[in-house]
Amino acid sequence: MSGWLRVVGLGPGSEKWLTPEALAVLQEATDVVGYVPYVENLPASITAEKHASGNGVELERAAAALRLAAAGRRVAVVSGGDAGIFGMASAIFEAMEKGEPQWRELDVEVIPGLTALLAAAAKLGAPLGHDFCVISLSDYLKPWPVIEKRLQAASDGDFALAIYNPASKTRRDQLLQALALLRKQRSDDTIAVIAKDIGRADESVSITSLGEVDAAQVDMRTLLIIGSSHTRRVGRFIYTPRYYEDRP
Amino acid sequence: MSGWLRVVGLGPGSEKWLTPEALAVLQEATDVVGYVPYVENLPASITAEKHASGNGVELERAAAALRLAAAGRRVAVVSGGDAGIFGMASAIFEAMEKGEPQWRELDVEVIPGLTALLAAAAKLGAPLGHDFCVISLSDYLKPWPVIEKRLQAASDGDFALAIYNPASKTRRDQLLQALALLRKQRSDDTIAVIAKDIGRADESVSITSLGEVDAAQVDMRTLLIIGSSHTRRVGRFIYTPRYYEDRP
Repeated sequence: MSGWLRVVGLGPGSEKWLTPEALAVLQEATDVVGYVPYVENLPASITAEKHASGNGVELERAAAALRLAAAGRRVAVVSGGDAGIFGMASAIFEAMEKGEPQWRELDVEVIPGLTALLAAAAKLGAPLGHDFCVISLSDYLKPWPVIEKRLQAASDGDFALAIYNPASKTRRDQLLQALALLRKQRSDDTIAVIAKDIGRADESVSITSLGEVDAAQVDMRTLLIIGSSHTRRVGRFIYTPRYYEDRP
Repeated sequence: MSGWLRVVGLGPGSEKWLTPEALAVLQEATDVVGYVPYVENLPASITAEKHASGNGVELERAAAALRLAAAGRRVAVVSGGDAGIFGMASAIFEAMEKGEPQWRELDVEVIPGLTALLAAAAKLGAPLGHDFCVISLSDYLKPWPVIEKRLQAASDGDFALAIYNPASKTRRDQLLQALALLRKQRSDDTIAVIAKDIGRADESVSITSLGEVDAAQVDMRTLLIIGSSHTRRVGRFIYTPRYYEDRP
């Protein structure tokens, strides 16, 4: 059996952020498996057979990919950004755990990619230049009270926040509840950022404040960054300093 | 004035993780500024003048780089991993804030890079496949009580943890205190990972448990990952599932 499976992070949209390692794996693969927009926008040099599927079928996609690898194919399962950060990697291991015992013996590796928070933060300066939390607002697979507890804990620790999956077309209430919770904990003038479609032609970042975040602007391709109490502006940039002013 | 400054994340050591964007910037730069090991290990194709300095002089290095850019040079300030995650980006903006007013008008951009936690997590599976916190244990620029409060908050939220700068040759107590705090909050059999020199020829990852982390193994080139209560093993991998078992 000479098949393998690689879970490949493509970075956020643009080929300028695709690592040489990820490109090499895509070029060696016989099959590329993933969510439609990722599979359809691969570099032109990728000639592998393409298996595109819709959103919300991660576990089925993972099982199908493991089955292909077990049959001797060289399979690249692709995610936008990094596959290990709210991408396909966890789904692959979940499918491995629930599936055929021999899947655990397959040649499987995760190939890291530039996750969206790094690209979004870089556009702005260094808003995540100090301790921060990364959290998904999606309650599709975890109960809302867990998310609420984590938002509270992140506030207690005065962490900056990078919020993935803040909303979708149908999932709008979570964002409103999250903003209400954070506004009770942090000053309304805390710096906030709405980063959209980073790495795509129509990317945008807008710097605002926690008090003025317009939920209507936020969709499933948005990353939301909320500063800590120390996050500040200098010129057109924002950054979270490495130091504390009250350091003796 | 045609000078510019780019704060460039090199990724964790290996050229396979250097993005095409970062490589292009390094090739266009007239000057590369950074900590000795990063400046000395650039790809052979980089012919820029090299300005290497030691550890702990980030602010002076940042000011020197801004001065070069103001004088018309094309300056790449390099960091390992991502410059925005405990790298040089915050120091650049701090120097900009404290320095010459005209530095704020310079052509400055941050070029994102693969931060160490992504590469380390990928080696292991997907230990950060769900909500997590990123925290530095260094109390060189922030008071220890802030760090302690954040470790406590991260525990309260049952976040997985990626711990940067866990220790250095002389700074050993912080790690012992952090482990003692976390061991009061989480089960001793919580999965923990000691990742060393990721992306270098002598890289290593060792999977252990919170109760058995050997502090003597941890140095300044180590990234420590502590799982959440949901982080688990499957075969030779570890991952944090996307779902909660108690989800109805």
